[in-house]
Amino acid sequence: MINEQMLKLGQEPSSIRELFAYGLERKAQIGEDKVFDFSLGNPSVPAPDAVSRAIGDLALLPPATIHGYTPAQGAPAPRAAIAANLNERFGTSYNLNDLYLTCGAAASLNICLKALVCPGDEVVVVAPFFPEYRVWIEGNGAKLVIVPARESDFQIDVPALAAVLNENTKAVIINTPNNPVGVVYTPQTLRELAGALRDASEKFGHPIYLMSDEPYRELVYGDNVVTWVPSVYQNTIVCYSWSKSLSMPGERIGYILVPPELEGAREVYAAICGAGRALGFVCAPALFQKVIERCVGEPADVDAYVRNRQLLTSMLDELGYEYIEPQGAFYLWVKALEPDAAAFAEMAKSFELLLVPSDSFGVGGWVRLGYCVSDKVITGSYDAFKALRAQYA
Amino acid sequence: MINEQMLKLGQEPSSIRELFAYGLERKAQIGEDKVFDFSLGNPSVPAPDAVSRAIGDLALLPPATIHGYTPAQGAPAPRAAIAANLNERFGTSYNLNDLYLTCGAAASLNICLKALVCPGDEVVVVAPFFPEYRVWIEGNGAKLVIVPARESDFQIDVPALAAVLNENTKAVIINTPNNPVGVVYTPQTLRELAGALRDASEKFGHPIYLMSDEPYRELVYGDNVVTWVPSVYQNTIVCYSWSKSLSMPGERIGYILVPPELEGAREVYAAICGAGRALGFVCAPALFQKVIERCVGEPADVDAYVRNRQLLTSMLDELGYEYIEPQGAFYLWVKALEPDAAAFAEMAKSFELLLVPSDSFGVGGWVRLGYCVSDKVITGSYDAFKALRAQYA
Repeated sequence: MINEQMLKLGQEPSSIRELFAYGLERKAQIGEDKVFDFSLGNPSVPAPDAVSRAIGDLALLPPATIHGYTPAQGAPAPRAAIAANLNERFGTSYNLNDLYLTCGAAASLNICLKALVCPGDEVVVVAPFFPEYRVWIEGNGAKLVIVPARESDFQIDVPALAAVLNENTKAVIINTPNNPVGVVYTPQTLRELAGALRDASEKFGHPIYLMSDEPYRELVYGDNVVTWVPSVYQNTIVCYSWSKSLSMPGERIGYILVPPELEGAREVYAAICGAGRALGFVCAPALFQKVIERCVGEPADVDAYVRNRQLLTSMLDELGYEYIEPQGAFYLWVKALEPDAAAFAEMAKSFELLLVPSDSFGVGGWVRLGYCVSDKVITGSYDAFKALRAQYA
Repeated sequence: MINEQMLKLGQEPSSIRELFAYGLERKAQIGEDKVFDFSLGNPSVPAPDAVSRAIGDLALLPPATIHGYTPAQGAPAPRAAIAANLNERFGTSYNLNDLYLTCGAAASLNICLKALVCPGDEVVVVAPFFPEYRVWIEGNGAKLVIVPARESDFQIDVPALAAVLNENTKAVIINTPNNPVGVVYTPQTLRELAGALRDASEKFGHPIYLMSDEPYRELVYGDNVVTWVPSVYQNTIVCYSWSKSLSMPGERIGYILVPPELEGAREVYAAICGAGRALGFVCAPALFQKVIERCVGEPADVDAYVRNRQLLTSMLDELGYEYIEPQGAFYLWVKALEPDAAAFAEMAKSFELLLVPSDSFGVGGWVRLGYCVSDKVITGSYDAFKALRAQYA
């Protein structure tokens, strides 16, 4: 009677969002400060003052100049500002016609997949991976191919990835800094990956696109450097969002960059326009296009996440948990204390700790903690983590 | 190599948007005041002061309370405000769980189609119809079935529509007040349509959904009344947008209403959540959810469109053009002066008049004029319309 696949997708919502909804309910029941919610990637750092100022200033301008339709790919001025910012930072020479503004990274990825995928295609991801990749890849009719990351350091296992490439491989999606592990891919990893993709593209006679999902690009710690992926591999499409860097994930603003060096760049860009149209994306929110035009150079506030990382890891060190030290993003990947991550997360829930089991990310045995939370949530959770640890002693 | 269908869709953009882009270019060449652009439905009335005030006020609040993710279906408070507003106006008893906020009517329609359509389904539209209906219906794998409107008054030709309903009909899309004709469907038309849909639903053993696309609901002239469609037909899904009523089409905010009376309402709502997720819609822009919460009762400024309608129709009367008197929306449906509407629109272009040929809307022989323009565009176009008329004398 209705589309069963959509019904199923709607009735089995993402486990992250389900946990978040449970958390809201639970807080209402027992009090905000009694629930330690590490489920979501909702930035705890507020949007910078520059964003509020830009919004306030724009609200004073004649509304007819602010709220109208823009071209589907976005107004020219913000796209030019973004191109200029990228060029300044990465020594590139992009222009506004290489950019297509979207309603965030989810939209960017889904539009790209719709533009690229043909029946029978395969798209490769590195596990653990953001769970919605599966929804979007399979939803666009491609086969999801999962390659586990290297166990030692969660870098890409390039030989394993190279081994799954075949004549049906349309694209590989990478995410650096990585959600859920917090790893930043090294230049060497990316060079090796690029080499493997070039070899396979040549062998199979068509380009294998690298979709670089980069909402965490600006959230990187210490000496870690996020390589500009198109500088390493020609056929890279960048999917970006300001959700995390400017702390406005609800506002749905991001972009797709199709570098002019990409094989068939103009056709790919046109297909992206077609896919956006087919999906009912009319334009990215017009006010926030103008906010980005003004705030594109605004630095992300990484310090709060650095402090949270320190607070959380020293606490877990003391309590004897194992985890991967994050180099970027704001997630901590913690070893579950039993092989069944879902059972472990359920046990954690009984101590009011909301942790996302790793099964949603395509691997077993771990949980993800989003530490984009107030420091009170971290310090307040000490007893709960201690009790959880004792449960498995 | 890439998806050919998307490439085609991207390379043959909507003729309306193409004309709009041509207009921008042409204005840059010969001057803003020399081009008479009636191509787009971009409201000329500015967003009300209440919208600017709401944005300005929200910009002063702590950003963390404004720009975060909301639940996928929208934050509870704006949904409750919308339900209360509908209940007050239409004597209904909706609540926030009947509403799913979207990035505008395009998203609303596309999400609904994705939620409902199964392989082999048919979706019926009344011609002339908004051209993107075809993209979304066919894009979701359904067959587009076109029923011409009644020639005399552009009301729905219910017997003709009833005749195309069959066991594969999943839904009918209507749009009242209508783009492109400006007609408002009478209560009698809607009652007859409801009767035909009820008969066919019974005959074929499954509900035929009525998708009511209502971005122009608030733009209605004089004594015309826009019937609340769910009050006439139980299985109605309302797709709404504030693009036109609050003059902010670039901000992408609208809703889907699944009335609780609808057969299988909870499953349909769940499938809508699933479809939104599959399409990469994360949530409607968070700031504008809050703007709507504050401005949902704000009246649309219809007066400017009433004046424009008067200005335009008296001018065309004087020059001897035939048209349909609009009862709502802000479009005038004018008889082309030759059978080939595209050729007529091309001829108009040579006088710097940008009119959309009716072929895009599924019928021949007419052009659409969007009179959501400054009055100067209308008065300034007099000589051009006169010269165009003379061309066909």
